[in-house]
Amino acid sequence: MSCKAIALTAGEPAGIGPDLCLMLAIQPCKHQRVVIADPDLLNARARLLGLDIELSVFDPSTTPTAQAAGQLSVLPVKLAAPCQPGVLDPANAHYVLDTLRLAGHGCEAGHFAAVVTAPVHKGIINDAGIRFSGHTEFFAELTGTPLVVMMLACPGLRVALVTTHLPLRAVADAITQPLLEQITRILHQDLQQKFAIAAPRILVCGLNPHAGEGGHMGSEEIDVITPVLERLRAEGMNLQGPLPADTLFTPKHLDQADAVLAMYHDQGLPVLKHKGFGNAVNITLGLPIIRTSVDHGTALDLAGSGKADVGSLNVALNTAIDMIDATESV
Amino acid sequence: MSCKAIALTAGEPAGIGPDLCLMLAIQPCKHQRVVIADPDLLNARARLLGLDIELSVFDPSTTPTAQAAGQLSVLPVKLAAPCQPGVLDPANAHYVLDTLRLAGHGCEAGHFAAVVTAPVHKGIINDAGIRFSGHTEFFAELTGTPLVVMMLACPGLRVALVTTHLPLRAVADAITQPLLEQITRILHQDLQQKFAIAAPRILVCGLNPHAGEGGHMGSEEIDVITPVLERLRAEGMNLQGPLPADTLFTPKHLDQADAVLAMYHDQGLPVLKHKGFGNAVNITLGLPIIRTSVDHGTALDLAGSGKADVGSLNVALNTAIDMIDATESV
Repeated sequence: MSCKAIALTAGEPAGIGPDLCLMLAIQPCKHQRVVIADPDLLNARARLLGLDIELSVFDPSTTPTAQAAGQLSVLPVKLAAPCQPGVLDPANAHYVLDTLRLAGHGCEAGHFAAVVTAPVHKGIINDAGIRFSGHTEFFAELTGTPLVVMMLACPGLRVALVTTHLPLRAVADAITQPLLEQITRILHQDLQQKFAIAAPRILVCGLNPHAGEGGHMGSEEIDVITPVLERLRAEGMNLQGPLPADTLFTPKHLDQADAVLAMYHDQGLPVLKHKGFGNAVNITLGLPIIRTSVDHGTALDLAGSGKADVGSLNVALNTAIDMIDATESV
Repeated sequence: MSCKAIALTAGEPAGIGPDLCLMLAIQPCKHQRVVIADPDLLNARARLLGLDIELSVFDPSTTPTAQAAGQLSVLPVKLAAPCQPGVLDPANAHYVLDTLRLAGHGCEAGHFAAVVTAPVHKGIINDAGIRFSGHTEFFAELTGTPLVVMMLACPGLRVALVTTHLPLRAVADAITQPLLEQITRILHQDLQQKFAIAAPRILVCGLNPHAGEGGHMGSEEIDVITPVLERLRAEGMNLQGPLPADTLFTPKHLDQADAVLAMYHDQGLPVLKHKGFGNAVNITLGLPIIRTSVDHGTALDLAGSGKADVGSLNVALNTAIDMIDATESV
């Protein structure tokens, strides 16, 4: 496989994103890591962390090259206001979005094979008067994608969600046959195309406890989930379920599966983050580009301290690399 | 601590309950295990499993004695119809309930220090025309307890539930201030009295994803949960929350806690059963008696095969013994 350029957005400048991008560069990489951020910010943060990182400006017209330990490329974007670790400033909200936009457009233009995102701070972007509900929605809009799927993964487990950031009382009504069918199709297709799994085996959770226990505890399994699964199975998809979520995450089931489809956020993510603590990655499926992300926030109190854990960003980068390989292989 | 008699209900005769009670007896016990079941059923199942178990009829008027390996006491109840492993018969539904009743009354009378339950089959009891929704509700009614709390535990984690077997769409409305307050009080009191934890540290989940993110994703944290926690904290309880369920089950939080209070079934149990697979126990809090149970079903296909896993019943018995010790110590 040829060497690619991979975009790393450093995210909120006052958070640990810049730190993590620099810490990643301690290791060599068979691809070219390109941090999209202000070089002055990166140099200042590197000094704070005592890291000796050699930054070189990215030139999209040259062939990507592997990086030795300590090497990192940068696609420069100027901060609007000076940044102190841990201190949010709405003046830099546009800067953050510019880095994401450059990453997305760079992927679409073929300069980057994937984008890996460090955490942003939603609140401060909103405080700057900008409508922004998260990376996932941002890249969906940027690429004109009507529906994306949020999937978290760690070694041994992948969990995709039918609904994401909804109040719990809105979940049952949000799970419709068309939505479930589209989400399942996206998950199935991306497991094939971006993970090179020829015949993905997907475990589908019920919505209700015990998957409704035959209609005694809710009817959505009978009315919504089972009809969709039957239709898609008829097309050849390997879908187990609806299964009770409390017993699904045990070896008997997981050993036979490539991914779990949970109906809502707190049904699937507690076990994923418990199992994958510090090693989980957030993947957006359904996009025309490869996008992975850390599974944590900006940790403002740790910025510049050297105490941030690079584990999740490292897994996010490695997952993106695996997805690039898989995409080339299918 | 003195030796006690502990009731073991063998549950559904066609399931693995009788097998598990016999398998337990392979180990010695510092207390006297009393299986409540038909002795003929137990002897027949022991022959099938090739187990050499010495059954002696329980006499509540004698002082309980420790048991050597292979020793087991029995409180005889006659089956109504002959039982074949794996074959349910509604004719034996009353038999099953009689064993539970004897266990509960025996605890209340002081003959037993605890009851440990093997699985029953709800469906076949209902098919016999008997209203029955589970062990938990049965023992609550038998002992005149208006509200009980379901808690599952495994080494390193305890998860109690505010709501249990409700359709997901009914959960948000079911979480009221009075219910949450009573459930939290029962959990706190039983952790003190039945687990000898002087100042229990309890992590309380939010209802919504990210615990509502400050009201942006649901208002129940602000309207219901936080006011209750503040009231109870003012009484001296150590309650953390409402916390986002997806990040709560990580060492940062769990290392500082004695129990987690989840708002609903599939928010708390997937991670508990993932972590505690084969070693989880179901505990009913709030009862005037000590009651623990396996966390699995009757596994009809494994009855008489020798392939049943005694792990959960073993943990249930040991947990009951720990709770007896703790109750005596406070």
